[in-house]
Amino acid sequence: MGLFSKDIETMDDLFVHQLQDIYYTEKRIVKALPDMIAKSNSRELKSAFESHLDEIKNHVRRLEQVFEMHGVEPETVQCPAIDGIIEEADEVGGEVEDKKVLDAALIASAQAVEHYEMTRYGTLIAWAKVLGRDDCARVLQETLGEERAADSKLTSIAENSVNQVAA
Amino acid sequence: MGLFSKDIETMDDLFVHQLQDIYYTEKRIVKALPDMIAKSNSRELKSAFESHLDEIKNHVRRLEQVFEMHGVEPETVQCPAIDGIIEEADEVGGEVEDKKVLDAALIASAQAVEHYEMTRYGTLIAWAKVLGRDDCARVLQETLGEERAADSKLTSIAENSVNQVAA
Repeated sequence: MGLFSKDIETMDDLFVHQLQDIYYTEKRIVKALPDMIAKSNSRELKSAFESHLDEIKNHVRRLEQVFEMHGVEPETVQCPAIDGIIEEADEVGGEVEDKKVLDAALIASAQAVEHYEMTRYGTLIAWAKVLGRDDCARVLQETLGEERAADSKLTSIAENSVNQVAA
Repeated sequence: MGLFSKDIETMDDLFVHQLQDIYYTEKRIVKALPDMIAKSNSRELKSAFESHLDEIKNHVRRLEQVFEMHGVEPETVQCPAIDGIIEEADEVGGEVEDKKVLDAALIASAQAVEHYEMTRYGTLIAWAKVLGRDDCARVLQETLGEERAADSKLTSIAENSVNQVAA
């Protein structure tokens, strides 16, 4: 399905477009996260990023499963939102010299990514349900649960160690 | 304060940089929201956007208050993340012909904006606290509460009317 001007006519089109958007997003994060792992100083943070990278690769596979369940080929569509979020993460990260302060900045960037994914999965689940695709909604819900858990873990690492050490 | 390469040395610098980022973000949304109000079809959605626009103008003032409390001049810093989120909102909105489907797309875009703001305010509050600026944290918390309420209201409008009508 190729999307161009006025090519979204129905809720189903919008759902598929959003699937393509988050498919691009997950693949983009698979590429971006190793750099954040390399830059992180706290062992706890590095380990949290590494575990989440494994989860994200599974999110990509789950999306391919949802595409298949919905009878469309998995395709990506360019997503300026995640491109902007990652561009900003790179910019801010590049401005920080101190490794402990950098950890705090890395967590903030990763949480911006998590929140973007949470809103998109939340929307997709709501749309899947009105389209009568509770089966797709259930698969997407598994990923949303993992994104929320990853975000909470980052908050905990920030509040209990990284921010204290950096300040 | 001008920020350029390796110019963030301390948590305080990082806090001010993030304040400048969200200050840019709020001002960007003040400019973008009237277009979303104009495009929205559902009266309930239009009214929710209009009320939130008033709140956002107040968020800008609260940020100016936090800058002042912290002893720095209010300044913006370019934020590729919100630029990307709004660019994507414009792109997707431009692809949707049907007004009811457009309402669903507008809500999704607005929630992506809300989630970006929620993560940034959450981070700012955590950083204000470790910097011993509980006074700044309290002001930022007021805005975070309003962002969360706006997001919940949009979820409710989507689930109870807009998505049903569009599907």
